[in-house]
Amino acid sequence: MIKAGIIGATGYAGGELVRILLGHKDVEIAWMASKSYAGQKYSSIYENVYQLIDLDCIADDLPELAKTTDVIFTATPQGYLGSILTEDILKECKVIDLSADYRITDVEVYEQWYGIKHGSPELIKQAAYGLPEIHREEIKGKQLIANPGCYPTCSTLSIYPAVKAGIIDPNTIIIDAKSGTSGAGRGAKTQNLYCEVNENMKAYGVATHRHTPEIEEQLSRAAGEPVMINFTPHLAPMNRGILATSYAKLTAKVTKEEIRKVYEDCYKDEYFVRVLPEGHCPQTRWVEGSNFVDVNFELDTRTGRLIMMGAMDNLVKGAAGQAVQNMNILFDLPENEGLKFVPVFP
Amino acid sequence: MIKAGIIGATGYAGGELVRILLGHKDVEIAWMASKSYAGQKYSSIYENVYQLIDLDCIADDLPELAKTTDVIFTATPQGYLGSILTEDILKECKVIDLSADYRITDVEVYEQWYGIKHGSPELIKQAAYGLPEIHREEIKGKQLIANPGCYPTCSTLSIYPAVKAGIIDPNTIIIDAKSGTSGAGRGAKTQNLYCEVNENMKAYGVATHRHTPEIEEQLSRAAGEPVMINFTPHLAPMNRGILATSYAKLTAKVTKEEIRKVYEDCYKDEYFVRVLPEGHCPQTRWVEGSNFVDVNFELDTRTGRLIMMGAMDNLVKGAAGQAVQNMNILFDLPENEGLKFVPVFP
Amino acid sequence: MIKAGIIGATGYAGGELVRILLGHKDVEIAWMASKSYAGQKYSSIYENVYQLIDLDCIADDLPELAKTTDVIFTATPQGYLGSILTEDILKECKVIDLSADYRITDVEVYEQWYGIKHGSPELIKQAAYGLPEIHREEIKGKQLIANPGCYPTCSTLSIYPAVKAGIIDPNTIIIDAKSGTSGAGRGAKTQNLYCEVNENMKAYGVATHRHTPEIEEQLSRAAGEPVMINFTPHLAPMNRGILATSYAKLTAKVTKEEIRKVYEDCYKDEYFVRVLPEGHCPQTRWVEGSNFVDVNFELDTRTGRLIMMGAMDNLVKGAAGQAVQNMNILFDLPENEGLKFVPVFP
Amino acid sequence: MIKAGIIGATGYAGGELVRILLGHKDVEIAWMASKSYAGQKYSSIYENVYQLIDLDCIADDLPELAKTTDVIFTATPQGYLGSILTEDILKECKVIDLSADYRITDVEVYEQWYGIKHGSPELIKQAAYGLPEIHREEIKGKQLIANPGCYPTCSTLSIYPAVKAGIIDPNTIIIDAKSGTSGAGRGAKTQNLYCEVNENMKAYGVATHRHTPEIEEQLSRAAGEPVMINFTPHLAPMNRGILATSYAKLTAKVTKEEIRKVYEDCYKDEYFVRVLPEGHCPQTRWVEGSNFVDVNFELDTRTGRLIMMGAMDNLVKGAAGQAVQNMNILFDLPENEGLKFVPVFP
Repeated sequence: MIKAGIIGATGYAGGELVRILLGHKDVEIAWMASKSYAGQKYSSIYENVYQLIDLDCIADDLPELAKTTDVIFTATPQGYLGSILTEDILKECKVIDLSADYRITDVEVYEQWYGIKHGSPELIKQAAYGLPEIHREEIKGKQLIANPGCYPTCSTLSIYPAVKAGIIDPNTIIIDAKSGTSGAGRGAKTQNLYCEVNENMKAYGVATHRHTPEIEEQLSRAAGEPVMINFTPHLAPMNRGILATSYAKLTAKVTKEEIRKVYEDCYKDEYFVRVLPEGHCPQTRWVEGSNFVDVNFELDTRTGRLIMMGAMDNLVKGAAGQAVQNMNILFDLPENEGLKFVPVFP
Repeated sequence: MIKAGIIGATGYAGGELVRILLGHKDVEIAWMASKSYAGQKYSSIYENVYQLIDLDCIADDLPELAKTTDVIFTATPQGYLGSILTEDILKECKVIDLSADYRITDVEVYEQWYGIKHGSPELIKQAAYGLPEIHREEIKGKQLIANPGCYPTCSTLSIYPAVKAGIIDPNTIIIDAKSGTSGAGRGAKTQNLYCEVNENMKAYGVATHRHTPEIEEQLSRAAGEPVMINFTPHLAPMNRGILATSYAKLTAKVTKEEIRKVYEDCYKDEYFVRVLPEGHCPQTRWVEGSNFVDVNFELDTRTGRLIMMGAMDNLVKGAAGQAVQNMNILFDLPENEGLKFVPVFP
Repeated sequence: MIKAGIIGATGYAGGELVRILLGHKDVEIAWMASKSYAGQKYSSIYENVYQLIDLDCIADDLPELAKTTDVIFTATPQGYLGSILTEDILKECKVIDLSADYRITDVEVYEQWYGIKHGSPELIKQAAYGLPEIHREEIKGKQLIANPGCYPTCSTLSIYPAVKAGIIDPNTIIIDAKSGTSGAGRGAKTQNLYCEVNENMKAYGVATHRHTPEIEEQLSRAAGEPVMINFTPHLAPMNRGILATSYAKLTAKVTKEEIRKVYEDCYKDEYFVRVLPEGHCPQTRWVEGSNFVDVNFELDTRTGRLIMMGAMDNLVKGAAGQAVQNMNILFDLPENEGLKFVPVFP
Repeated sequence: MIKAGIIGATGYAGGELVRILLGHKDVEIAWMASKSYAGQKYSSIYENVYQLIDLDCIADDLPELAKTTDVIFTATPQGYLGSILTEDILKECKVIDLSADYRITDVEVYEQWYGIKHGSPELIKQAAYGLPEIHREEIKGKQLIANPGCYPTCSTLSIYPAVKAGIIDPNTIIIDAKSGTSGAGRGAKTQNLYCEVNENMKAYGVATHRHTPEIEEQLSRAAGEPVMINFTPHLAPMNRGILATSYAKLTAKVTKEEIRKVYEDCYKDEYFVRVLPEGHCPQTRWVEGSNFVDVNFELDTRTGRLIMMGAMDNLVKGAAGQAVQNMNILFDLPENEGLKFVPVFP
């Protein structure tokens, strides 16, 4: 049994890690740490696991906990893990970080977009960017995984094949993404109250959202050249789900069938990426609760643009599910072990 | 492997059966029948199972299908199974009926409340009422299971211990229940459109809802005398979940602790019924997607009434999950096999 | 022009007062006070009134403000107005209090249920309980109005005719009420976040909710004897709306038609109470945004109980709308002036 | 009093016309026609107007009705009015058409995108496109108004100033729009059921939506040259509201302040268009129930793109409210008469 610990277990991503790991036959949750709720019974906060787990939340003494744990998931605020992680800790156990601290290889870019001084820039190069469908080989054997952001996962996976194949001009990419409200976290903020979110749609972080450089780094790697994009997130009145609709200019005349082959070839061996049949637009309802990403595209021959779409559950493939997928890779388990959830509908 | 078939596979309960059975290690879905969608690929209707199941919907030739199937789930309109089921079919395979046709032992009561002439009243006595927490022994070995209604499951399980123990007067019971909209089915009706249900609460079927006699029969059995109740269902703007709040007069002075003992003793060996700690009201969010029923009570010493509460997922414990629980009993499997879903929150 | 001020203008009831008063031809909003947002432009907090009102929030110096204001609406936490209101202030201007401080005539009952020491119990008898449909004559000419609670307004208006006519036993009354989340206020609490409320139903304050004694006082006055009831509120995933479903034993055999006459006679001159046609259950969607209360009933001859139902908008008839209705009475305006909103659907 | 009639009164736009006209002091609703509900009392279908209007739905004999009516609103399916409207009818009364039949000046474009043979192409040139903020002078004195589509209204008003001022390249415009579900109409379709829409985001009509040529015509007129755009609508789980997020390349270096001046100058005399303060993104919650359109923009200096945003209520400014605004112009009333609704929040 893999002994796993979770720091930040009482946020929504932390809660989802508990849900998933409880059903993973090779994992035992050894402890759950939470700044806000230390000392309280976990199942009194997340009553969905009442009678399923009987642990109290503990304080997060990372160096000490690392000694008795095989893998630690950190679902913590940006900058926190960066400020406390050390080489010594990484010698003791594997760390899968759900924050942004090790996702961006250029620390200056990180510090500029996040407005945070990175506490351990020397560790960035030890981390693998944990998007298995693209970087599977780099992930294997690592001690530190930078688990991708929710928007970057959905955006990158739906655009990547077209960029890789060179059929779109990467500098014309515009990503318009819509997220459920669990992405905003469990902090008690007025703007996230039910009555503020319900019956509302809004853009936020326009031209300044922190996931922009993360997406740009991934698409630049795919394009083999620096890429600059527009990324605009929106908050939608639903609990879960991200839908990314992306636009780009075609580089040359190409048929629907050719593009379809590009996508299908790219993902033909991937369990978690489903290229939908022609004419079926991805919808968040079809992936809720699961680790699937549904992708598809439309070709607009009038304007010469490709419209690329992706739908996934922000808490699963966009956070906890992908973290467990990375854990499976690190521990040589089947990649979908404990992740074969059928999407819950309705 | 148990070969299972589903009639009515494209309704919400049918879709939930598919979701659950796909994750059941001892079951293979042999076929799915649907009147409305026969000939169409199932995963084009329920895209959540795209790439997970590749069957087309077929027509429902029950006698023929029964010959090659171990268990058939019928998620069909009231009266339909009653009109086509025969002893011969039941000799071929087991049938778990999610409709109301075999739930009520007195066929006259059934015909009066449902306004339907029962087509096979002689089979009613062969059926067991599939509420395992109360009738487990009767279920074993049966060929025909009357899977309980959603409201009756939630109402009965939250009231039963108090009636059984004689601490409330059963003829003062008032059940006020609130259901998510999946309970209204997938038929294209104006009243179930998004804009009609969203931002709305309403009662319906007041004093006439068909689940009333089903609940009364169960509570009468528990009380050992005929019981008449008020049952009022409400439609709530959510996909899943039933919350039942029930009221009754105490028969004698009794303490909170004594009542708690009654509930805990009653359900101490039950995996799927969770008696919550004192002061925690059941909430549908804590059971969504799972087969759990959360129950609890409050004592109002001012008015001498007991308030009993239950929360569950109407599509799981209220339909498909309970059906699979019954199947597990019929096939001598662990009762929670394939049903150990952790509730999905948020 | 009536010069009106609002204390607590940035809560949901305060925001609704602003919305309603902006459309009232005889009223000018002179100032808006807010503890949390003093010094900020009101329309930066409630952007719905951007370009419609240009005031900043001010601090709430009640004695000083009273000198230059005709009527002050207080949408403040329980106990606050009680602690600062004086006879001198009431000589300067009229006060319509949306909190509970002057609703209950017996200060001991108030202090016991609210757990608050009342700061000005001597003023309680000067206040009229502002439910115009029942206490119109008492309201006229008063300086202090205790604007009713949301649940009490909906519950009382839907039960009152039956109690007054003596056709139900008031001590058997059970009120099961469901409220939209705006009733929980705009405070930043985890339990009121979108993801906690969405897809959830729960009861709260079972057997202890503070609106219980307020309802009991009103029903006792109607019955002419002390009445004790059960009142159970529930939180529903919607912004606005209260639905109250109430149950009581009939005192004698009575026909549907007789009961209908009781309700229609009681409300035949009331603009804001609509007795629905037979068979139409009140629904919150039909009153949203308006000052209407829709009421109706069903007779259960099997159990000898009457089921009484009421639906209204908790922020309008349950708070700000009723406050303006009271203001109209105090200033000899037509009672529905500025309140003839057609309900907004969908 | 203006005698008004409504054809298609039982759809959502029709219902909203009734709500608005009931509060318009210069209008009397003379009749309401509905194919589906002819002969039924209108308030039994839209119970929000119970006791406010007592008419039955009638059949829609347009030529006859025109003789006794001053203005007819047609909220009918695409192609219907085109097939029955005549010059003679237009001599009798004014017609404000909420369908698309007279919005597009080139009938071939209409027929191609709508797949409908236009029944009265000769009348198209008699119609004015009823977007008062841009075409006010053309509207005055007309007998036939083509009331704009919901998406075109929101998209055009948020992009128009930038195109008109020449600061963006109109052929790089990409519009990503999100709409509440009332935009999908009141027809009983499975895909619009509560459980299908709730907790879901999806794009639809990608590269083929019929509002595309309507927007292109308006932007072409503003640009003075033919414009081709990408327009992608999405369905969001809410009743009302459209949010349009649009992207375009800047034609030259321009500052935020210069762009702000362009927008403010353009709309400085418009009551219904609110240019929000810097940094405030339009949100549908701030316009719900009102005729306002909130617009704003962000400048992305990194990518050289302008992001333009608009939010409005699809049933008001996107349909019934704008129709009444046009009526006010046609009858020389103040343009905001009967339309000064304060947005309803929450």
